Amino acid sequence: MAGLRVCSVLVTGANRGIGLGLVRQFLGMPSPPAWVFAACRDPKGQRVQELQNLASKHPNLVIIPLEVTDPASIKAAAARVGEHLGGSGLNLLINNAGITKLNSLDNETLENMTRIYTTNTVGPLLLGQAFLPLLKKAAQGSPGSALSCSKAAIINMSSYGGSIASPSGWDLMQIVSYRCSKAALNMLTKCQSLGYREHGILCAALHPGWVQTDMGGCLPSSAPQPAVTVDASVRGMLNVLSSLAEKDTGTFLDWQGKVVPW
Amino acid sequence: MAGLRVCSVLVTGANRGIGLGLVRQFLGMPSPPAWVFAACRDPKGQRVQELQNLASKHPNLVIIPLEVTDPASIKAAAARVGEHLGGSGLNLLINNAGITKLNSLDNETLENMTRIYTTNTVGPLLLGQAFLPLLKKAAQGSPGSALSCSKAAIINMSSYGGSIASPSGWDLMQIVSYRCSKAALNMLTKCQSLGYREHGILCAALHPGWVQTDMGGCLPSSAPQPAVTVDASVRGMLNVLSSLAEKDTGTFLDWQGKVVPW
Repeated sequence: MAGLRVCSVLVTGANRGIGLGLVRQFLGMPSPPAWVFAACRDPKGQRVQELQNLASKHPNLVIIPLEVTDPASIKAAAARVGEHLGGSGLNLLINNAGITKLNSLDNETLENMTRIYTTNTVGPLLLGQAFLPLLKKAAQGSPGSALSCSKAAIINMSSYGGSIASPSGWDLMQIVSYRCSKAALNMLTKCQSLGYREHGILCAALHPGWVQTDMGGCLPSSAPQPAVTVDASVRGMLNVLSSLAEKDTGTFLDWQGKVVPW
Repeated sequence: MAGLRVCSVLVTGANRGIGLGLVRQFLGMPSPPAWVFAACRDPKGQRVQELQNLASKHPNLVIIPLEVTDPASIKAAAARVGEHLGGSGLNLLINNAGITKLNSLDNETLENMTRIYTTNTVGPLLLGQAFLPLLKKAAQGSPGSALSCSKAAIINMSSYGGSIASPSGWDLMQIVSYRCSKAALNMLTKCQSLGYREHGILCAALHPGWVQTDMGGCLPSSAPQPAVTVDASVRGMLNVLSSLAEKDTGTFLDWQGKVVPW
């Protein structure tokens, strides 16, 4: 991770699972970011205890209230982050918040499809729009023109389940609403990479591995257990982020840096 | 098209553009289907005149009211089609209805993203569910076990614009909401192919070409004009449908039968 030196990062869905793991490892770096913004729905809620404990020890950690399905909440979060940063930009936006539901093809509904799409796909679009001025500012303030995560980047947490070419785990979980939302998120990542390249912002989609979280663990009892710990997944992903360069914008990589087929 | 002999077909968005072209060419076949169901939002509306003219000449054409974003309307359409078919099944469901809006990455909204996803992605999911019993019946009533469009199939009208690997036309049209909905539709097609194979139903996504329709034609004035006529596109696609076999279920092909990258 020698190469990943960001002054500021925002992680959504930061109160548990992979989001919390990312926050922990950013804070534990030899040269931690000056600002780690941990966004979550209800910063005063019961499920935010660990984040609050971390914040009491790390003055560079700021908990930001954020509901990713609410455009007003997203704008308010961007304004709040901007105030903390003063005149500086935001280097890294990690769209990690996501939901799923274990539906089969036969019992997916309109409501479920749109609810999951709104959180997993539309949220990252709106966050990209709202934080664009701060990301541009970081890119402008960074030396050199080559894209990198240390300069300015949007990382969208996707999933192997969103690979159309290789839709893994169908026999265990059909989760059509989730798969569709992640395929669409991969398309959004490609669009963001095309649209934001001129602003000096790198955009990539990551598959975190089959991780031991509430989400990764919500499998039928017949399923094999998730194979990767949160710590190992996050360590791998931060290593991948440190290596991302110009050629990687608009790609879909797993936590070990392997290209995942669309 | 010698190989495409379907007893019954339903086309959504059938009152204009590619949908109307499909209906016309089905009716004009040497051995036309016994039933051509032309579904559209408002069968009494002004924009359905051509379909009404065709229906007055072709007793095998039935206009079906259908709002693809309304689950109750979809169920009512399936019931109505089932009544016409008596004890027979439906061979071919063509999910052609779709919408777009010429937004840029910067001005996409939550409302636009979910509206286009609901029509272009969720509609085809719900139609697949509602017409599944009729499609299964057609598959069961067809000799042999090999998948084909003459037996039972769902064809989803996708677009090259939904190719993540090769997102064509970015400089002309960003249309992120449309691209995301079509990438998700491609994923849905893959899921349907996996889920419905055991029922003897083939599922594929088609790119119709850059077609001279209201939708294909709604380009900035700087854009080159669409290159393919509706007639040529539909002729090509029907030729592709006639050739689809077991190996093609879950694939994404253009109107000339070439594989489109995901």
